Amino acid sequence: MSTAFTQLVLGLAFRGALCWAKGVNTDPDDQEGTLPGDEDPPAGTLPGDEVSPVTEEIFSSWALFIMLFLLISALWSSYFLTQRRIKAVHETVLSIFYGMVVGLIIRLSPGHYIQDAVTFNSSYFFNILLPPIILNSGYELNQANFFNNIVSILVFAIPGTFISSVVLGVILYIWTALGLESIDISFVDALSVGATLSATDPVTILSIFNAYKVDPKLYTIIFGESLLNDAISIVMFETCQKFHGKPAKFSSLFEGIGLFLMTFTVSLLIGVMIGILVALLLKHTLIRRYPRIESCLVLLIAYESYFFSNGCHMSGIVSLLFCGITLKHYAYFNMSRRTQITVKYIFQLLAQLSENFIFIYLGLSLFTEVELVYKPMLIIITGISICVARWCAVFPLSNFVNWLYRVKARRSMGIYGNDAAIPDEIPYQYQMMTFWAGLRGAVGVALAMGLQGEFKFTLLATVLVVVVLTVIIFGGTTAGMLEVLGIKTGCIDENDESDDEFDIEMPKPIALATGPIASYTDEVPSVEPVSVPISTATANNPLSSDTVQSSSRASLDKQHLRETLSTIFSADSQWFTNFDEQVLKPVFLDSDNSQSGKKSDSSTPNILGNRR
Amino acid sequence: MSTAFTQLVLGLAFRGALCWAKGVNTDPDDQEGTLPGDEDPPAGTLPGDEVSPVTEEIFSSWALFIMLFLLISALWSSYFLTQRRIKAVHETVLSIFYGMVVGLIIRLSPGHYIQDAVTFNSSYFFNILLPPIILNSGYELNQANFFNNIVSILVFAIPGTFISSVVLGVILYIWTALGLESIDISFVDALSVGATLSATDPVTILSIFNAYKVDPKLYTIIFGESLLNDAISIVMFETCQKFHGKPAKFSSLFEGIGLFLMTFTVSLLIGVMIGILVALLLKHTLIRRYPRIESCLVLLIAYESYFFSNGCHMSGIVSLLFCGITLKHYAYFNMSRRTQITVKYIFQLLAQLSENFIFIYLGLSLFTEVELVYKPMLIIITGISICVARWCAVFPLSNFVNWLYRVKARRSMGIYGNDAAIPDEIPYQYQMMTFWAGLRGAVGVALAMGLQGEFKFTLLATVLVVVVLTVIIFGGTTAGMLEVLGIKTGCIDENDESDDEFDIEMPKPIALATGPIASYTDEVPSVEPVSVPISTATANNPLSSDTVQSSSRASLDKQHLRETLSTIFSADSQWFTNFDEQVLKPVFLDSDNSQSGKKSDSSTPNILGNRR
Repeated sequence: MSTAFTQLVLGLAFRGALCWAKGVNTDPDDQEGTLPGDEDPPAGTLPGDEVSPVTEEIFSSWALFIMLFLLISALWSSYFLTQRRIKAVHETVLSIFYGMVVGLIIRLSPGHYIQDAVTFNSSYFFNILLPPIILNSGYELNQANFFNNIVSILVFAIPGTFISSVVLGVILYIWTALGLESIDISFVDALSVGATLSATDPVTILSIFNAYKVDPKLYTIIFGESLLNDAISIVMFETCQKFHGKPAKFSSLFEGIGLFLMTFTVSLLIGVMIGILVALLLKHTLIRRYPRIESCLVLLIAYESYFFSNGCHMSGIVSLLFCGITLKHYAYFNMSRRTQITVKYIFQLLAQLSENFIFIYLGLSLFTEVELVYKPMLIIITGISICVARWCAVFPLSNFVNWLYRVKARRSMGIYGNDAAIPDEIPYQYQMMTFWAGLRGAVGVALAMGLQGEFKFTLLATVLVVVVLTVIIFGGTTAGMLEVLGIKTGCIDENDESDDEFDIEMPKPIALATGPIASYTDEVPSVEPVSVPISTATANNPLSSDTVQSSSRASLDKQHLRETLSTIFSADSQWFTNFDEQVLKPVFLDSDNSQSGKKSDSSTPNILGNRR
Repeated sequence: MSTAFTQLVLGLAFRGALCWAKGVNTDPDDQEGTLPGDEDPPAGTLPGDEVSPVTEEIFSSWALFIMLFLLISALWSSYFLTQRRIKAVHETVLSIFYGMVVGLIIRLSPGHYIQDAVTFNSSYFFNILLPPIILNSGYELNQANFFNNIVSILVFAIPGTFISSVVLGVILYIWTALGLESIDISFVDALSVGATLSATDPVTILSIFNAYKVDPKLYTIIFGESLLNDAISIVMFETCQKFHGKPAKFSSLFEGIGLFLMTFTVSLLIGVMIGILVALLLKHTLIRRYPRIESCLVLLIAYESYFFSNGCHMSGIVSLLFCGITLKHYAYFNMSRRTQITVKYIFQLLAQLSENFIFIYLGLSLFTEVELVYKPMLIIITGISICVARWCAVFPLSNFVNWLYRVKARRSMGIYGNDAAIPDEIPYQYQMMTFWAGLRGAVGVALAMGLQGEFKFTLLATVLVVVVLTVIIFGGTTAGMLEVLGIKTGCIDENDESDDEFDIEMPKPIALATGPIASYTDEVPSVEPVSVPISTATANNPLSSDTVQSSSRASLDKQHLRETLSTIFSADSQWFTNFDEQVLKPVFLDSDNSQSGKKSDSSTPNILGNRR
């Protein structure tokens, strides 16, 4: 590795020297004409631009080489950290660090070609890097857990983001109005910055949670929140930007809320419709006979939901997320086996690459974005205020959710005993962990690129530094925080219906006959006993019927009470499960595969046991 | 589909109208500032550019939506054509056609944002679209067939491309020198155009050959030629461009040849070294326990070979091709099973998408490249001369190869009977088919983007139209030509050691226990009886030892003679097989897997039977 790194540095230095020797204009003001994507000859022939297309080709090769090299280093470190069981330093922190080191080298070396080619480009981010992550999240989402915790998720995602943005916006506005920093921004701009810094990042925290196998409930709440968060921040930011430079009116608030709800609903519908479209296409054609074409089509149509939704001024993220969920829920069972495997692995691989890439990009940008204006005090104030803002969002809303569940539980069961006997839906440790999980990610930076006005680069620099700081500080301490708070780890997810029969070492030839094949064969018979119709599952489940009876005797311990509550709350979503099973699945799934379609839903009865 | 198309058109019209209403500058001269990749805000704030980042985001979403929509249409048509067994129209022709239709719509609609966003960009082509195709070609290459026909391939690829470029260059130079078209280009520029139009395209022809299961020998020759062709055209073109605007000297010829040979060798070595590096990394680490990281790393390191090689002024295509071959030959056996499957499917999927994308791009470019200058006579002359040039390359060189093999056969066997008894290495039908397979592809267009000088856009337009014409004319008639020439089709490749156990319909639940599992299990025991050490395989092969004896009796019919010749010629490459088996494989392959490593090489004894 070190040899390769030396080569890289030498290569960079060599290129830099070449660039210098050729007298390329190194004036940073000349940058607009030489951004990535401009390498094609028509743009290359701008007056004063003496670099030939071949040289540009070379530079873009080196830029891509560096990027891939950083990705390789990050992945390699990730392997090394996992292998050595080092948990203090996280992969994403290393990605940012590598990005910073190389960013510094690029900044110091003469010539601006590579520097321009590796600049953070919000268009690349939104169109290339973000979709795979969101799609994979939707596709890999544990649907049972997600919909069981939908109330908490929506509360944190919608009012939570709103509170966070407003608190942050107000603090920033007051600070800048004090005039200590000689910057002066309008309230709408402060709110825009608040919105960019309210998008929490799913990547780091969830990879840690995955490694520790944290309690699925906490995992689902934080995951769901951070996913919807992004969508909501984007919509809020865009709404704010529409009011940029105009006097803020009180009616704008309602206009904004209405716009938000409309956007969210329409985007959700677009995603679901496209997912269903894929399911029907696969059902009514013979395309599964050509799995190469089939896998391409599934991938492409999923992406279409993103671009179509964005193109219609809706939220592509929401559409893509729900498209992924719908694909997994219906279309998955109409695919050929090969496509099932291909799609799953490709989504995973693209998401993994994008995640690492994004953090490297962030690190790089700290040095390669030449126009940034860093104001230390503003950065410190912003850093403190995002903690305040998150505190204001998480704790009151957690108490609200707890209160909501307590009221509901009392109403459902009648009042037995005092309130204290009813456990919190979100206990204090979970609240603290949710607060701690509020690190900010690349979505914020990408949004901040769209800021307008005089202090654009000051605000962008602030957002960038704050995001990197949260990832380093909160991301680096999450593992420790899990231990301090005593949160249950090592939970095995029973619903994990994965295709991971290949997640093993290359089988030894001798063991081959019993190794992967055994697991592959085992999977099949195990389908039969569990595939009871869902509608009767609750009755057949000895655990839940037992707990319902014991609860009526009012001699329940906390554990039993929780299970009872789960039963009550999940009964609300039972109507959809029944409707889905009896009406939707026969329509969307291939009749030949309806049996195997039920296979996955064998997990649904286990929902009850899963909400602990 | 038609609804979606209507939406697309409406969407386009709507966007166009919006763009118009906003008074966006539609002057084509203003295009340089608004190329793809420019959508990020720093570039968006050029003076006079009133479009906000949000609007630009919307436009890039629509551009991507259109691209993906075209890809989906092309893939869907491909499914439809295969399903209905329609062979007159080929998928790539349809891709070009769809591209042209949408290009026309975009051209006619007001506003230039989408038009700019979908412009053919040679940087995207070389850095994003081409690598997957080349990597997949190398990875899927039938190594035994390739190295058995290496002589023919190299002859067609190296002197063939050279002859073709020179003939084409001379014809073009003479035509322009006549002064009928009022364009005047130097000889070096004519030679550059010759080089761009000498890169034959592997995509269309090989997908037809695959569908028909054409004789592997013909397949391999055309495949190998078109792969190396691209690399050689690129090197030739770049060499020519270095002499642009300078007086041509005779010594430049030798300089060019020396440069070419050096480039080819170094690139090949880079590719092989990186492939071996991956094999050693996988062997000496435990990374196969983390297949997600492993698959990403294999993919990334393979790409690194491309960018590293390009960055060093070498040929990335050659490096990537040989990196793919080395990966399959060594690294494949050190991977976890999951990575083997992931890598294979991802390479295939990316290659499939890139191929379709490239042809759509070509079609689009005919209308969206606003600066093109079409000169009908020049196009006709160029169209005729590429046929002449290919004729001059294919037929004399085929005769040369035939002569070479005849001499060698006579020397090896002593002279038994007359020359006529020795069959041609490349019979006339194969020569004709090789001539016919000379359609030009996107590499030529991408190279032509790099042309310099006053008549740049005239030459680019000519190259673009000629490429599209060859694909439509030769691509459309290949299937018919195969029948007319009576070329053997429906050959089953015995060496096809594929992972396609999932290339089946989603298994019916009842048949599940016997269906795919049976085939999966079958694969394993079948390894044992064939995995005899390679060094003794020739002796054990009853067919070849039989034919060797019968040849000494000089009572052989043509069929037997051919097999004898194959034995003689392949004996030359036997030393490498032995060296590989006894020295290289133990070093590069994981000792635990050496047994399964041999599994694939069980196909090597079959080489002999395969050269018919």
